[in-house]
Amino acid sequence: MRSYCRRLDLILDTAEGSVVRDVTGREYLDFVAGAGSLNYGHNDPDMRAALIAHLERRGISHSLDMFSSAKRAFLTAFESLVLLPRGMDHRVQFTGPTGANAVEAALKLARKVTGRTNVIAFTNGFHGVSQGALAATGNRHHRGGPEIPLYGVTRMPYDGYLGDGIDTAELLDRMLHDPSSGLDAPAAILLETVQGEGGLNVASPAWVRRIAELASTSGALLVVDDIQAGCGRTGTFFSFEPFGIVPDLVVLSKSISGYGLPMALLLIRPEYDVWLPGEHNGTFRGNVHAFVTARVALEKFWSTRDFAADVARRSNLLARRLAEAAALVPGATVKGRGMMCGIDVGSGAYAAAVVRRCFADGLMLETAGSYDQVVKVLPPLTTPHKLLDDGLDILLAATGAVASARETRSSSGLVTA
Amino acid sequence: MRSYCRRLDLILDTAEGSVVRDVTGREYLDFVAGAGSLNYGHNDPDMRAALIAHLERRGISHSLDMFSSAKRAFLTAFESLVLLPRGMDHRVQFTGPTGANAVEAALKLARKVTGRTNVIAFTNGFHGVSQGALAATGNRHHRGGPEIPLYGVTRMPYDGYLGDGIDTAELLDRMLHDPSSGLDAPAAILLETVQGEGGLNVASPAWVRRIAELASTSGALLVVDDIQAGCGRTGTFFSFEPFGIVPDLVVLSKSISGYGLPMALLLIRPEYDVWLPGEHNGTFRGNVHAFVTARVALEKFWSTRDFAADVARRSNLLARRLAEAAALVPGATVKGRGMMCGIDVGSGAYAAAVVRRCFADGLMLETAGSYDQVVKVLPPLTTPHKLLDDGLDILLAATGAVASARETRSSSGLVTA
Amino acid sequence: MRSYCRRLDLILDTAEGSVVRDVTGREYLDFVAGAGSLNYGHNDPDMRAALIAHLERRGISHSLDMFSSAKRAFLTAFESLVLLPRGMDHRVQFTGPTGANAVEAALKLARKVTGRTNVIAFTNGFHGVSQGALAATGNRHHRGGPEIPLYGVTRMPYDGYLGDGIDTAELLDRMLHDPSSGLDAPAAILLETVQGEGGLNVASPAWVRRIAELASTSGALLVVDDIQAGCGRTGTFFSFEPFGIVPDLVVLSKSISGYGLPMALLLIRPEYDVWLPGEHNGTFRGNVHAFVTARVALEKFWSTRDFAADVARRSNLLARRLAEAAALVPGATVKGRGMMCGIDVGSGAYAAAVVRRCFADGLMLETAGSYDQVVKVLPPLTTPHKLLDDGLDILLAATGAVASARETRSSSGLVTA
Amino acid sequence: MRSYCRRLDLILDTAEGSVVRDVTGREYLDFVAGAGSLNYGHNDPDMRAALIAHLERRGISHSLDMFSSAKRAFLTAFESLVLLPRGMDHRVQFTGPTGANAVEAALKLARKVTGRTNVIAFTNGFHGVSQGALAATGNRHHRGGPEIPLYGVTRMPYDGYLGDGIDTAELLDRMLHDPSSGLDAPAAILLETVQGEGGLNVASPAWVRRIAELASTSGALLVVDDIQAGCGRTGTFFSFEPFGIVPDLVVLSKSISGYGLPMALLLIRPEYDVWLPGEHNGTFRGNVHAFVTARVALEKFWSTRDFAADVARRSNLLARRLAEAAALVPGATVKGRGMMCGIDVGSGAYAAAVVRRCFADGLMLETAGSYDQVVKVLPPLTTPHKLLDDGLDILLAATGAVASARETRSSSGLVTA
Repeated sequence: MRSYCRRLDLILDTAEGSVVRDVTGREYLDFVAGAGSLNYGHNDPDMRAALIAHLERRGISHSLDMFSSAKRAFLTAFESLVLLPRGMDHRVQFTGPTGANAVEAALKLARKVTGRTNVIAFTNGFHGVSQGALAATGNRHHRGGPEIPLYGVTRMPYDGYLGDGIDTAELLDRMLHDPSSGLDAPAAILLETVQGEGGLNVASPAWVRRIAELASTSGALLVVDDIQAGCGRTGTFFSFEPFGIVPDLVVLSKSISGYGLPMALLLIRPEYDVWLPGEHNGTFRGNVHAFVTARVALEKFWSTRDFAADVARRSNLLARRLAEAAALVPGATVKGRGMMCGIDVGSGAYAAAVVRRCFADGLMLETAGSYDQVVKVLPPLTTPHKLLDDGLDILLAATGAVASARETRSSSGLVTA
Repeated sequence: MRSYCRRLDLILDTAEGSVVRDVTGREYLDFVAGAGSLNYGHNDPDMRAALIAHLERRGISHSLDMFSSAKRAFLTAFESLVLLPRGMDHRVQFTGPTGANAVEAALKLARKVTGRTNVIAFTNGFHGVSQGALAATGNRHHRGGPEIPLYGVTRMPYDGYLGDGIDTAELLDRMLHDPSSGLDAPAAILLETVQGEGGLNVASPAWVRRIAELASTSGALLVVDDIQAGCGRTGTFFSFEPFGIVPDLVVLSKSISGYGLPMALLLIRPEYDVWLPGEHNGTFRGNVHAFVTARVALEKFWSTRDFAADVARRSNLLARRLAEAAALVPGATVKGRGMMCGIDVGSGAYAAAVVRRCFADGLMLETAGSYDQVVKVLPPLTTPHKLLDDGLDILLAATGAVASARETRSSSGLVTA
Repeated sequence: MRSYCRRLDLILDTAEGSVVRDVTGREYLDFVAGAGSLNYGHNDPDMRAALIAHLERRGISHSLDMFSSAKRAFLTAFESLVLLPRGMDHRVQFTGPTGANAVEAALKLARKVTGRTNVIAFTNGFHGVSQGALAATGNRHHRGGPEIPLYGVTRMPYDGYLGDGIDTAELLDRMLHDPSSGLDAPAAILLETVQGEGGLNVASPAWVRRIAELASTSGALLVVDDIQAGCGRTGTFFSFEPFGIVPDLVVLSKSISGYGLPMALLLIRPEYDVWLPGEHNGTFRGNVHAFVTARVALEKFWSTRDFAADVARRSNLLARRLAEAAALVPGATVKGRGMMCGIDVGSGAYAAAVVRRCFADGLMLETAGSYDQVVKVLPPLTTPHKLLDDGLDILLAATGAVASARETRSSSGLVTA
Repeated sequence: MRSYCRRLDLILDTAEGSVVRDVTGREYLDFVAGAGSLNYGHNDPDMRAALIAHLERRGISHSLDMFSSAKRAFLTAFESLVLLPRGMDHRVQFTGPTGANAVEAALKLARKVTGRTNVIAFTNGFHGVSQGALAATGNRHHRGGPEIPLYGVTRMPYDGYLGDGIDTAELLDRMLHDPSSGLDAPAAILLETVQGEGGLNVASPAWVRRIAELASTSGALLVVDDIQAGCGRTGTFFSFEPFGIVPDLVVLSKSISGYGLPMALLLIRPEYDVWLPGEHNGTFRGNVHAFVTARVALEKFWSTRDFAADVARRSNLLARRLAEAAALVPGATVKGRGMMCGIDVGSGAYAAAVVRRCFADGLMLETAGSYDQVVKVLPPLTTPHKLLDDGLDILLAATGAVASARETRSSSGLVTA
């Protein structure tokens, strides 16, 4: 990882809500949130209590892919609180407990369903670093050297990649329908509705709908990677809810356990559940502790609409204050959607300077984007209004300070980074 | 998964030591041990206590790849109790928390180090089901259809694959040194010293040493996948210790957390640690809860030689009694090493019948091998002598009963499976 | 092959200039010209005489890659008449005698030079059907089923692919320079300046120059596939001469022998000639008979500028009369450059109808394009003005007749194809 | 190319029968025979006369894949003189005119027929250097660097690869039938019955029959690459005739035109001819001049059994005298079958010394094998007894001289090569 907060002398110790403490007792506001794994903050008391209770009653901790009471309870909650209210009848597959594992499973399943190899993925997409997932990931740093050929993926420009005037879905449309385009018929179209690592790029509803339609007409499965954008991060449980589409496959991980525990799942439209028994196996497919906390997370936050309303309010606050921060930096723009947002300050060096200063002032942030040029703001969704404002105050001050310093150096001819 | 104990109406609830209970209160002896993930049994009291304490003091649960007090404590223990006493100076990389993730990292690193693509893997090897790992896995059931081409791996016959008279390392030796053999220079040779899923096939020390030498002379990295055979399963912490070799890369997972929690790591000889910062990343690389229990596991079981001596005693018991069981089945053989053992009963149907009857009598077992023809006996290493004997009694009775039934049906011309 | 003239009852026998005769003595004007292999017409008398002389004096016919007097004479002519006058110092490699063989060699060499795997090719490109070449070919019909994965090529939109307003080179530019685009650094950019099989699509000079510049700045070799467009077909010996660029590698085949004999070569900038001796071998790399006729072709047609001037005049005639033909078909457009041209009539069925009627009237034509919707006009470059006019008369009459018939059927509601 | 006769100052000019002349008039006996492309010698008078007649009557020279009178005449001869007498009903496909082109077509077709990707090829096999063919070729020199991944092929040890006692087909048998071997179900098994470039390794009839049976039982197509060993080189038209097998696909090239002209074809059992029209196309599939000479070759040499009887007599002479030569070199062995034979002298340097001295004495030879350690003797099959003896005299003298020189140096401690 790249940003300053990953300094070697920082040894984290305890954490609660949106605050982490290092071994010296120093506190930090955490606007990284485990890169989206801690949407409900650190050590939520209800999840913690449930996990301790599970431990104390000798609840089983590992049962391969066998059924357990904890798994059953999670599935019941997931079906009643997530799937049914959204009119979805997807099956739930527990893959290995990381997003990359689930992406691997999704691509393998889509290839099996369609009998095709090719997968469409997008510029700046990030889907993990295992070989199958990495083929779909855009980042050159992770794609690595020529000694590991990655294949089976065709890259298409994401929404907005060629600027405002050009609908990039047009290229995909033409190439899909042109028998001489060189685009092999796709097994899947894999996309994030907001590209987290790619720089908080937001796809428009119309573009996503067109892509969904192209998947459908070309016989490909639509796979939404909601690893980072899901679990409420953009305001709804799934990031695609406002768009009126229902993907064939959905990948969830990161915040699905609610507590930062490794867990991932793949949602599969019933007609595409063509796995043979044990075909895609793995030792840690059912992380029982994660089932325990995940169930509590669903019951606590998704039984009513209150949480979504809270997130909407916090999103508005974020949008407003990030705009203030962006106004301090020439050419900067606010990016993202919901509580998955940030400021593109134009260069990685600039963003690193802002992150460094925030860290000194007690705020942890990360960067994202092709050049790490985006200061990424990913607070726990549960961050109280006061703390959110505190963090944004620090960010604004840091942004202002870096901007001033740069201006000064610039006018004195000393800009280096 | 394939065997009977994965029946849908079994819902596991609690577990302690070598015993699991379902929601109806029925108890089972667990000789599956999470496919090797529960070498220290279920819910070890010391690990549980440490994890509860961590939870109660709001110990951080997720910190991406940042340092935490729990990670530091684990690393200290791992270095002083595992690496140093064995004269190893490997670096520790936390990959995604599954064995497949760690295998992916190992292959990627070996390819980066050598600038080569090809990896040598062996017949009946099992290394996971993500795309990069799956390429090295032999099992056709998992390798799946032609729509997912797996490449970059050359398959060689494992020790004993062509019968007793033939040293299969000779083929690898010849092909490595013949410039016209069609074998591309390998980045890595990847092997298990005992093939768990492959049927408890045991490589001889001489064969492993020759393979290690071939890796060295051909400029390939020797990668030992100790996911299932490591953490004491064969009697020593690493399965290769008795052979006098030191692999370049070692993959550990399954029992490394001690408690069945997802965790994996890759040991890297320092000269091969050529990763750039963040090059092989992932959200769940540092499962803090697993660090907590893993540290306790190391301190509790590997501070002295007592545990290894216990495992040796239990291994002897297992070997003796499995021989008795094998004697009941015409043509059956005992397979495996240490407490990673079983009986090859000749057919999957036969093995399934034995496993089914054991389950009915309260003993959980799995099968392994190309045809699931091996009844696999993988008790927790901590299983008390009495319980071990109880389980083996059940196995012997079941084996005898199935053998009799088959004989009867055979003499009446009614054998079907 | 698809078009009507490939009917099974047509058995060709003799040919001279632009006229072929079948075994029944029926004559046809040949505006297919061996898909560009017969730029100088059939059985040119000077080449024929030279070949007969070679045969009569027992000139060697096959000498592997050893030097022969015929090869030496060809190389002398090629250097003095083609390379030197154009300021090129490329080395000449004789690959296997087909265009695909030479494309394979070009891609292999570019990959060896750069140490990269990826090759940029374009929508609607056609480069052959061997596995390496096929990966760069766009046509789905030839790319075939999922059982033959083709990889190592990234497809980009050709000039004009997204309509007039959009410079498709912009996408390549952005993706090359965006470290997170998912585009792996290319070994080569491979293009035809006019896409023959792809539908006579013409790249603009500005677009080609920008692509050449992108190759240069991204460290990729620029490879021009001049198999069909070279040897004078577009008016100059190489199709790229008017654009002021010098490719790193140039692939020639088809008309290079002058007589329709199998021959191919690869031109290599000296600094990229990194082949080891015998690295890219093959039995038929030096087709001696082809050297004999190829030398005559160069001396006869490329010693002065007269031939190019003739081709320019014929190109003008073609352009003018094809415009007349296109005017007869609603929505039809003239396509191509030089004597590599045709009419896009909108559908494969329409084009087939035109070709069928021409054939009945004694004119052989082919179709091209994603849907075979382009009537392709590729006469020998040596076709006398009178014969050219005769052929175009037939084409105009056929186009008119088909247009009328369609209109009639359309107004009577009977259009089917 | 590697051997001495490829010296740059040798410029070949004319040739007749088994004798070639350079531009200075110096003559050489040609025991290279175009690496098997000149089985009937240089400039056979009947083929030459037929080709001159074709040229003089303006016989068409290039007709893409359209029918021509020359193609029809060849096919008639091939069917009546080759296929029918051998009880074969294969279809004939003209691929691009090189062996590699035909191998590419064979593999593509086998993959299409079976829906599988994997192809079994053997150690030391040589099948060409285009990407698809190269994947099946063993030679590391040609397989090249890691920037060109070659895949889709699994390598198995050829007959005799592990010494006399071990039947290497056993490994293939086991791996094919073991569902966990890691060997993906093959589309094809591709083999040469004698490996020309690989060092004149001869497969035994029993081994070939077992491989044929394994292809059949595993649902793979048996593809015999008879490019070098076919057209009479081993004594029968096809090299596999004595073995009582009928391959599903047979690849012919090199001597099929009879005159050293580029030509290749693929024989396909009718039930496997699943090509769509034009699916595997190419400009030079029908080399008309080659059809003319190929027809004459078949009619002249394969209408009666006389030629085969002659070849048998010459083969005996070769075997006897090569044994004499081998006796002069400690450890040397005679290799090969029919008139495709040579001496393994133990090292490439040794073989090069022999070839060099032969060349000085007027005999052209090549080397073969993993280390170029085999002096390869491939005279035209038509070489008169007297010339054959002359050439072998030169070879024996050269072998003796090199052996003496080495012995002398050896006893004086000066061996360098």
